[in-house]
Amino acid sequence: MPAFFPRIGIVGSGAVGGYFGARLALAGADVRFLMRGDLAAVRARGSFVIREQAGTAELKPVAAFGAAAEMGAVDLVVIALKATSGGELPSLVGPLLGPGTALLTLQNGLGADEHLAGLFGEERVIGGLVFMALTRTGPGEVTCFHPGSVSVGEFGRPPAERTLGLAAQLGAAGMKAHVVGNLLEARWRKLVWNIPFNGLSIAEGGVPTDRICADPSLASEARELMREVQRAAAAFGFAIPDAYLARQFDVTPAMGRYQPSSLVDYLAGRRVEVEPIWGEPLRRARAAGVEMPRLASLYSRLGALCSGPPQEAR
Amino acid sequence: MPAFFPRIGIVGSGAVGGYFGARLALAGADVRFLMRGDLAAVRARGSFVIREQAGTAELKPVAAFGAAAEMGAVDLVVIALKATSGGELPSLVGPLLGPGTALLTLQNGLGADEHLAGLFGEERVIGGLVFMALTRTGPGEVTCFHPGSVSVGEFGRPPAERTLGLAAQLGAAGMKAHVVGNLLEARWRKLVWNIPFNGLSIAEGGVPTDRICADPSLASEARELMREVQRAAAAFGFAIPDAYLARQFDVTPAMGRYQPSSLVDYLAGRRVEVEPIWGEPLRRARAAGVEMPRLASLYSRLGALCSGPPQEAR
Repeated sequence: MPAFFPRIGIVGSGAVGGYFGARLALAGADVRFLMRGDLAAVRARGSFVIREQAGTAELKPVAAFGAAAEMGAVDLVVIALKATSGGELPSLVGPLLGPGTALLTLQNGLGADEHLAGLFGEERVIGGLVFMALTRTGPGEVTCFHPGSVSVGEFGRPPAERTLGLAAQLGAAGMKAHVVGNLLEARWRKLVWNIPFNGLSIAEGGVPTDRICADPSLASEARELMREVQRAAAAFGFAIPDAYLARQFDVTPAMGRYQPSSLVDYLAGRRVEVEPIWGEPLRRARAAGVEMPRLASLYSRLGALCSGPPQEAR
Repeated sequence: MPAFFPRIGIVGSGAVGGYFGARLALAGADVRFLMRGDLAAVRARGSFVIREQAGTAELKPVAAFGAAAEMGAVDLVVIALKATSGGELPSLVGPLLGPGTALLTLQNGLGADEHLAGLFGEERVIGGLVFMALTRTGPGEVTCFHPGSVSVGEFGRPPAERTLGLAAQLGAAGMKAHVVGNLLEARWRKLVWNIPFNGLSIAEGGVPTDRICADPSLASEARELMREVQRAAAAFGFAIPDAYLARQFDVTPAMGRYQPSSLVDYLAGRRVEVEPIWGEPLRRARAAGVEMPRLASLYSRLGALCSGPPQEAR
């Protein structure tokens, strides 16, 4: 089966971008990586390594670039920058665009889809939600600690042929891929978990998610935050059932001593995506007339903890 | 807090033994590793590496030995050999024993506790159940893909001071450790998951556990196997509630594309622990008058698939 998107550009070749790019390239696509920090190391070694429970795979050679202008036009751009890097998108993505190029943003939280649509046209935008634990464990090396799944959906419209084609291509590349009917609803559903667990794990001083579930006071706070997200989502017409909330407390302890990506960033001294995960949902809810007092308090605590320039290590 | 067991010998320094030994050593214990295949590589590098989602840790230097006779007596021997290596235990463990040395076996399934008790005295034996995904990802390198937990219990008697001391020491070394009141009951409970999921993952041609849950026919077979284990356990006085069985189908899909340790062994061409996980439970149930026809059939299929000498790769 030929790849639905034969030529793919990866913008942001960290853990998520590197993993997706390497998997897609190993399955036969022509994948071009835009790299920064790891460019020299990857070029010197000539390979990108992904480690998984099922085994270690090496992509060799790697089409690694230091400038978007050198990469040429592609059929799909995968954007896996941290959402905190939004200002750079025109110069990083623009050179990769042909007339029909689609954009897949794997950025967290709310706002990335709209931002891309405003810059490059809404018809290009596909949103992706990554439910995996991917960590950069060395230069040009990503370890997948939890394979999970990825969900993809069209921005502001129902799934199209390309959405199904993308999901099939991701599936053929070894990822469990789902198509969602409503991208924005899927993002609110993911926030049911991310807002409490990513947030409390940082605000409470670096606690893994199983400890949030095991501590009655933290678990209760997480539950209340989830109810706020549920109420806000309802104001946008998305009915998230109570059972969905309850289920988070079944699956999360089973994940073990898990660190959400935001906590990994925080502990590594990297900038945390405070606005897309906590700020933007709070603002959208307010604009719709829904108060989220616990989220407001959490957002304020996170703002204080995560402000200032990125540090080398905390 | 001083370590409860100051001197520890690791017999079988593969994924499980290496991880436990390195964690305990990094927490301050005097840990001596008995190694085979990786001895030269670990000595040359001078370190043992454990990779986890929370970060990579390096134990340096490593007390690595090629012969038990060189290791001296220790306070605790951790036995993490595959249960298929039982015949070598006298020569591997004997030289490490002092008068009060305790033995912790991390071997899977049924039979290892009794085997050790017969060889070295039942008062020495502590059993451990490892609920983690640990994989050897290189010479002297283990990656923990799922931190999970470890349960420990005394062989044939209730928990003692040393059981609590061991759990505290494992906890201080960064592992989530539980003490179980009845070791044999805990082993039967673990078999509720291992018998169907480890077994079907191999017998059905290498399927990860989330696919067993997603396939109605495989999920139904897994459920029936669980009911057989439940009935057998009941014959030994262990009442495993229906809710415990049902819960396995909640937590397993959340583990993603997970390969049980037996499947990892099978795919790597290593010997699979067929007797402790499938053969011994079947024989014990029969001796207690409980027939397990689905387990008998699975055992027979696994015997055919996993017989013969270990191969380099399948």
